[in-house]
Amino acid sequence: MRLKRIELPFQSCVSDYKESDVVIFSCPMDTTTSFRPGTRFAGNAIRIDSFGIEWYSPYRDMSLKDYKTCDLGDLDLPIGDVKKALKVIEKTTDQIIKDNKKVMMIGGEHLVSYPVIKSFAKKYDDLHVIHLDAHTDLRDEFFGMKFSHATVIRRIFDVLGKDRIYQFGIRSGDKHEFVWASEGNTHLRKFDLEGLDLIVEKLKDKPVYITIDLDVLDPSVFPGTGTPEAGGITYKELLWAIEQFEKLNNIVGADIVELAPQLDVSGTSNAVAGKTLRELILLLHSKVIK
Amino acid sequence: MRLKRIELPFQSCVSDYKESDVVIFSCPMDTTTSFRPGTRFAGNAIRIDSFGIEWYSPYRDMSLKDYKTCDLGDLDLPIGDVKKALKVIEKTTDQIIKDNKKVMMIGGEHLVSYPVIKSFAKKYDDLHVIHLDAHTDLRDEFFGMKFSHATVIRRIFDVLGKDRIYQFGIRSGDKHEFVWASEGNTHLRKFDLEGLDLIVEKLKDKPVYITIDLDVLDPSVFPGTGTPEAGGITYKELLWAIEQFEKLNNIVGADIVELAPQLDVSGTSNAVAGKTLRELILLLHSKVIK
Amino acid sequence: MRLKRIELPFQSCVSDYKESDVVIFSCPMDTTTSFRPGTRFAGNAIRIDSFGIEWYSPYRDMSLKDYKTCDLGDLDLPIGDVKKALKVIEKTTDQIIKDNKKVMMIGGEHLVSYPVIKSFAKKYDDLHVIHLDAHTDLRDEFFGMKFSHATVIRRIFDVLGKDRIYQFGIRSGDKHEFVWASEGNTHLRKFDLEGLDLIVEKLKDKPVYITIDLDVLDPSVFPGTGTPEAGGITYKELLWAIEQFEKLNNIVGADIVELAPQLDVSGTSNAVAGKTLRELILLLHSKVIK
Amino acid sequence: MRLKRIELPFQSCVSDYKESDVVIFSCPMDTTTSFRPGTRFAGNAIRIDSFGIEWYSPYRDMSLKDYKTCDLGDLDLPIGDVKKALKVIEKTTDQIIKDNKKVMMIGGEHLVSYPVIKSFAKKYDDLHVIHLDAHTDLRDEFFGMKFSHATVIRRIFDVLGKDRIYQFGIRSGDKHEFVWASEGNTHLRKFDLEGLDLIVEKLKDKPVYITIDLDVLDPSVFPGTGTPEAGGITYKELLWAIEQFEKLNNIVGADIVELAPQLDVSGTSNAVAGKTLRELILLLHSKVIK
Amino acid sequence: MRLKRIELPFQSCVSDYKESDVVIFSCPMDTTTSFRPGTRFAGNAIRIDSFGIEWYSPYRDMSLKDYKTCDLGDLDLPIGDVKKALKVIEKTTDQIIKDNKKVMMIGGEHLVSYPVIKSFAKKYDDLHVIHLDAHTDLRDEFFGMKFSHATVIRRIFDVLGKDRIYQFGIRSGDKHEFVWASEGNTHLRKFDLEGLDLIVEKLKDKPVYITIDLDVLDPSVFPGTGTPEAGGITYKELLWAIEQFEKLNNIVGADIVELAPQLDVSGTSNAVAGKTLRELILLLHSKVIK
Amino acid sequence: MRLKRIELPFQSCVSDYKESDVVIFSCPMDTTTSFRPGTRFAGNAIRIDSFGIEWYSPYRDMSLKDYKTCDLGDLDLPIGDVKKALKVIEKTTDQIIKDNKKVMMIGGEHLVSYPVIKSFAKKYDDLHVIHLDAHTDLRDEFFGMKFSHATVIRRIFDVLGKDRIYQFGIRSGDKHEFVWASEGNTHLRKFDLEGLDLIVEKLKDKPVYITIDLDVLDPSVFPGTGTPEAGGITYKELLWAIEQFEKLNNIVGADIVELAPQLDVSGTSNAVAGKTLRELILLLHSKVIK
Repeated sequence: MRLKRIELPFQSCVSDYKESDVVIFSCPMDTTTSFRPGTRFAGNAIRIDSFGIEWYSPYRDMSLKDYKTCDLGDLDLPIGDVKKALKVIEKTTDQIIKDNKKVMMIGGEHLVSYPVIKSFAKKYDDLHVIHLDAHTDLRDEFFGMKFSHATVIRRIFDVLGKDRIYQFGIRSGDKHEFVWASEGNTHLRKFDLEGLDLIVEKLKDKPVYITIDLDVLDPSVFPGTGTPEAGGITYKELLWAIEQFEKLNNIVGADIVELAPQLDVSGTSNAVAGKTLRELILLLHSKVIK
Repeated sequence: MRLKRIELPFQSCVSDYKESDVVIFSCPMDTTTSFRPGTRFAGNAIRIDSFGIEWYSPYRDMSLKDYKTCDLGDLDLPIGDVKKALKVIEKTTDQIIKDNKKVMMIGGEHLVSYPVIKSFAKKYDDLHVIHLDAHTDLRDEFFGMKFSHATVIRRIFDVLGKDRIYQFGIRSGDKHEFVWASEGNTHLRKFDLEGLDLIVEKLKDKPVYITIDLDVLDPSVFPGTGTPEAGGITYKELLWAIEQFEKLNNIVGADIVELAPQLDVSGTSNAVAGKTLRELILLLHSKVIK
Repeated sequence: MRLKRIELPFQSCVSDYKESDVVIFSCPMDTTTSFRPGTRFAGNAIRIDSFGIEWYSPYRDMSLKDYKTCDLGDLDLPIGDVKKALKVIEKTTDQIIKDNKKVMMIGGEHLVSYPVIKSFAKKYDDLHVIHLDAHTDLRDEFFGMKFSHATVIRRIFDVLGKDRIYQFGIRSGDKHEFVWASEGNTHLRKFDLEGLDLIVEKLKDKPVYITIDLDVLDPSVFPGTGTPEAGGITYKELLWAIEQFEKLNNIVGADIVELAPQLDVSGTSNAVAGKTLRELILLLHSKVIK
Repeated sequence: MRLKRIELPFQSCVSDYKESDVVIFSCPMDTTTSFRPGTRFAGNAIRIDSFGIEWYSPYRDMSLKDYKTCDLGDLDLPIGDVKKALKVIEKTTDQIIKDNKKVMMIGGEHLVSYPVIKSFAKKYDDLHVIHLDAHTDLRDEFFGMKFSHATVIRRIFDVLGKDRIYQFGIRSGDKHEFVWASEGNTHLRKFDLEGLDLIVEKLKDKPVYITIDLDVLDPSVFPGTGTPEAGGITYKELLWAIEQFEKLNNIVGADIVELAPQLDVSGTSNAVAGKTLRELILLLHSKVIK
Repeated sequence: MRLKRIELPFQSCVSDYKESDVVIFSCPMDTTTSFRPGTRFAGNAIRIDSFGIEWYSPYRDMSLKDYKTCDLGDLDLPIGDVKKALKVIEKTTDQIIKDNKKVMMIGGEHLVSYPVIKSFAKKYDDLHVIHLDAHTDLRDEFFGMKFSHATVIRRIFDVLGKDRIYQFGIRSGDKHEFVWASEGNTHLRKFDLEGLDLIVEKLKDKPVYITIDLDVLDPSVFPGTGTPEAGGITYKELLWAIEQFEKLNNIVGADIVELAPQLDVSGTSNAVAGKTLRELILLLHSKVIK
Repeated sequence: MRLKRIELPFQSCVSDYKESDVVIFSCPMDTTTSFRPGTRFAGNAIRIDSFGIEWYSPYRDMSLKDYKTCDLGDLDLPIGDVKKALKVIEKTTDQIIKDNKKVMMIGGEHLVSYPVIKSFAKKYDDLHVIHLDAHTDLRDEFFGMKFSHATVIRRIFDVLGKDRIYQFGIRSGDKHEFVWASEGNTHLRKFDLEGLDLIVEKLKDKPVYITIDLDVLDPSVFPGTGTPEAGGITYKELLWAIEQFEKLNNIVGADIVELAPQLDVSGTSNAVAGKTLRELILLLHSKVIK
């Protein structure tokens, strides 16, 4: 008989922090969301609905139960205070990096990727970022704010500099963002994933962080997001991308962001996010060097 | 920095089992539900949404954070196997009773109250049950089954015998159920709570278990249930009932059953169940004798 | 083994037309609905969800299964053609009246009550109507149309004349409608049911038709309707009204209208309508003279 | 033929700013919302659904179309920047007060009431506030923030001082909030509106601002809000309160806050808010002195 | 400070009628809808949710803010009176054509395309129509009505004659409709868009009106419609079609019809319609000759 | 005038049992569903929404109204008693087979396919099964149960033996299931339908039963199912599969299972299931030998 306090981790990710090679945490923040908020609830929605997901992946032929993964749950973020929240995320990531574990982060709005990547950039001089998204996120400022879901990749650029960010699937933004990208600042592929296989080849020995705004998927596949943008990729295309990532020898961490679970009452978007999470956790484990 | 495995208990109920006076568990079972299923998801829905509830009750002038409560989460029930599931619930309750703690159970369908009450009946010869519900639940058999949400109070009668069960708020059932009750088998009050204060007075020194089928509430108050039955009580009337329960000196346990969270996408029913749960936990703590 | 074509009547209302004392039909029309349409789907929504309703009423101490009721289902109404549709409803009612059966009609928008009442008025010189509603429905014209959900009681007045219509629960309308009513045209009780018991006393030997726009209920009780109007009656007040109706010795027919099932995904409004329907069918049967 | 740019005001509130006695504006802000956000969308949701509301009130015997009301729509608030947003609201209110018009504000989260009341306090030394709410909103700080939906009445207290704030319907908060209120800081009536009629009598010649957190209503009546709290008032009780307000000779402004329209897909909560808005606009007009 | 009456146009389409080259209006009519109504609400749903859409199109490399577009909002259509409503639409279109502007219409059910095209046919002898749809819409009569969403293309044929209508994506209809089309009456391409590029080439110097029933999209992409029909085109295929339309030198107007916003609570269908609208407005502007 | 008891069959399937070549029935059972239940409601949801579907198929160039099909509706299954329920299904199928008619079954959870196939296996020694699904369903036991939605194909294997089951589209399961299949037990094609055309060729003269778990479709196409699994087939791919089935000369029956209608409030999944049902009924009729 089990008479222990309740835990509700993602699927079978019940290992202790110390013994784990991959650490999951979620960032319940959507403060700068300009249209429909709610991504703060993504982490636990994915956890609760992970009951419907198998631990075995027929894509990777690996099973979550064969690997040590710790799920920290939602970080305690001060609601409505963007700066403090980003600080908490950064410090948490710092510690996990120091403890030599891989990071699997769940948003929240896309801005939460910034402190995670900033933390990795402190360790890796030559960090590269692969960015899948419907939106450019390259504004320098949005509604007068420097730190916003709409500026996050620009802020990451401020940290990493040129030739470090590879964007795919982009189909929405202001004109000046596309122009700025094309001036040699980021590698931006419009509309689809073409060329991702070549980029992966090129970066195979670099430290790489993967940030997936799930709205890169067509809204038919993933309606549970604040600013759905038609014309996105299919789920099979996303699976193809993850297959390409296998060629990267040094993936340091990854995230999935922008699930707003209450917008899709069918639960499908939770399931899509959960399956993607499983695939990414397994991908990270396959890159652990012991 | 918190680098521990995730827990998602009800509100601030984070105490260890050993040190706790009240123990919460939930029963994810809706196998015999004849109309719209889904009560299996109630426990975690209440937990997740308990973020929106204060730990202080202005009704009891007590606060959850001042008391030791352990939340065990969902029991591991074999899906689709009613007998085994009831056995697991009974054994868990046996142990909690043995450890001299009070039980706060969350359904699931109403049948899950049976093994809990049966377990208490083993300890208390003169156990009495107060039952709030829209439905009689007094059939002897339903769709050929002896154990069903529609027979649960009849089965409890089999255990406790006459003059032990007090039913309130009842407004739905087959004619023969009302007739059977009126033959001196249970005390059945139709439509409202009239007389509850007198019953409580009468039972004040008896061991009493309280089972609340939340559909006793009018569906306007609690739409998130499988068989909503118009003409129920208001939430203020339920609060009045709980206030009456304070006069009972020996409440051994309580339950709330029949929340089907997916039926009320507004989340209101989760909030109603969560508030009721808080009030009942505090009620139980107020009856702990040290 | 049952190898017959499917039937999906309301609850246990499976009798043949010939042998039945009460005949149910539904009118899938919402053509003149000015705000949110969808009442065309009410009939079958109530039927499907009647699986969750008992056939026994503890209010009337009567059971549907002890009476002969035929459910004709949705009438075949030409979509978008108001005049033809009203004609079909009137003819159907004519025949049922001719066959000496009582009519239980399910809307549809409120305009469908017009042809039913018109049909009864042909038989009964002194027909009276009791009308429960949130809205006056007394406009002489609406968006240029004489026949509309907003003019239906005015059109019925054209048929019946003064001192024949008793309105209760009314809390919405244009000023001129309230003024017109108060000029001795209809008996209009604002906001609640006060006086209904006296009216029933007065009409006890008259032929009476009861038309219940379910939005007379507070939207908390009945959110599934196109123009919810706060400040309505509780379900217990509606039950009280039906209890009063028992004193009427000559109820010729009744209807419930304006359920728009898709607006209440919890299914509660279907259940409320279904329970009301059961009570009214039983009420009609209790008035059958053999 | 109308060949003009689209307008979508509340009901028939189409007057120009200059000629209007009452000015409506909405504050699309929910930045500090700690649980379920979405109140930013309330203003336009009420406007769109006001098509289903009559302009005549049978409660006040007044009609919106007989009065000059200007609807400014949503203010342009910088998303995610609380201080700047509050400044914009305050300046807008300053101007409307200067132009000698009454203010009818629509939230947003409750914090948006602060700048409006602060603006009125600059003009009226003896401003009083009547506050209907489920929640105390009296914390001095919440998640480290001074300005929050959970601190708003405390911040208003900082501006107005003792004996100026009358709270009704309160049924949720931390213990220290209730204690603080009871120390002579605010007049706090728990659970219901008892005594409101006496307070209104007392304040009848004072400048009074009315702030209505719509979650004072029972969630059955108003499920479309982020933190529903069972045990609230009925809509008829709210109507009674508004009737009492008629005795106040100097109502300077009013607001309704905390509608989160996406949480109630039935549209009922929009309709409830819209009807309340109509009643309050008419109330304000009845207090205009020319 | 903005102290002006509210406007809620589509995205940044805030120009005055006189100065605009493209004029948007919406037709809130769904009277003849035979299954699930609600398209009457499409126009304002698209407008409200256009806040989540960029004004720049990376597909056309054009931005809404660089062009003059007037949004007239919903036309005032008499509810339930098909003939009068069609007359209002036709007259409005007549005037816009007379003023030498391009028309961008938003339905409403598909029947509203009829008066717009009829109006254009008065000016252009050789008007051609490109029609994207899941349904044939070629019945000569439906439920006894000549003017219906199911007969609209047949009625347009009555105006234009043979060899003028090109249908694509068609996958639902009665057999006789497919047969009639194949008898040289319309060019009907079943299931997909194959051949659209060739047709566009052929019509490049003709006056062309484009009518897009959004249910041509697969229901996965566009669930918010009354009669979803599986097996439709992807959004990328629709984008390809719009790209082909660039070769047409004389597009006189366009419409999108059959969005029923309440059927897709995720808001995705609104976003899909809004993006399509932006692309079509920009397409129309690219064809303005000054 | 129609004065008959209501029937609500699928589309135009109104023939009597005796005269029909194809017999539809539905199995309202979801007892062993381990995650989100609700498939018990599928049959009537498809029937009600079949009003929105044409009887003519442009894919098969056949029309439902030209063939005799009897719809028996939901079988009367004892709720919560798996064994008895399977027995009822098997006996019903036995009789239909004996009467030399083809079976078109609607689930319910996938376990309901077992008794149907078992019944056919009694008649046909060399019965083959084509199985489209997202999930392997090959566990030997699930939660301690032999008969479960997760073991159904394994149980069917127990009846049919090796080389009889062809699985397509499979993308979820435990590792041991994939391994077991690959040991020559079933023919399992992962992820897509590749090779289906060859299998059909091979089986063209064999008796074949087709079981389609609709979750083989991508959840974008079919969100209304309990365990959505991203990465599935498109609807056009399913249509292609049905086209291949035309080459099978001896299709004895077919089923569609796992629609949980309440999970997709847009109604799209009902429409997808209904269209698939129409195509399969027509396919069965095309294989009737007279």
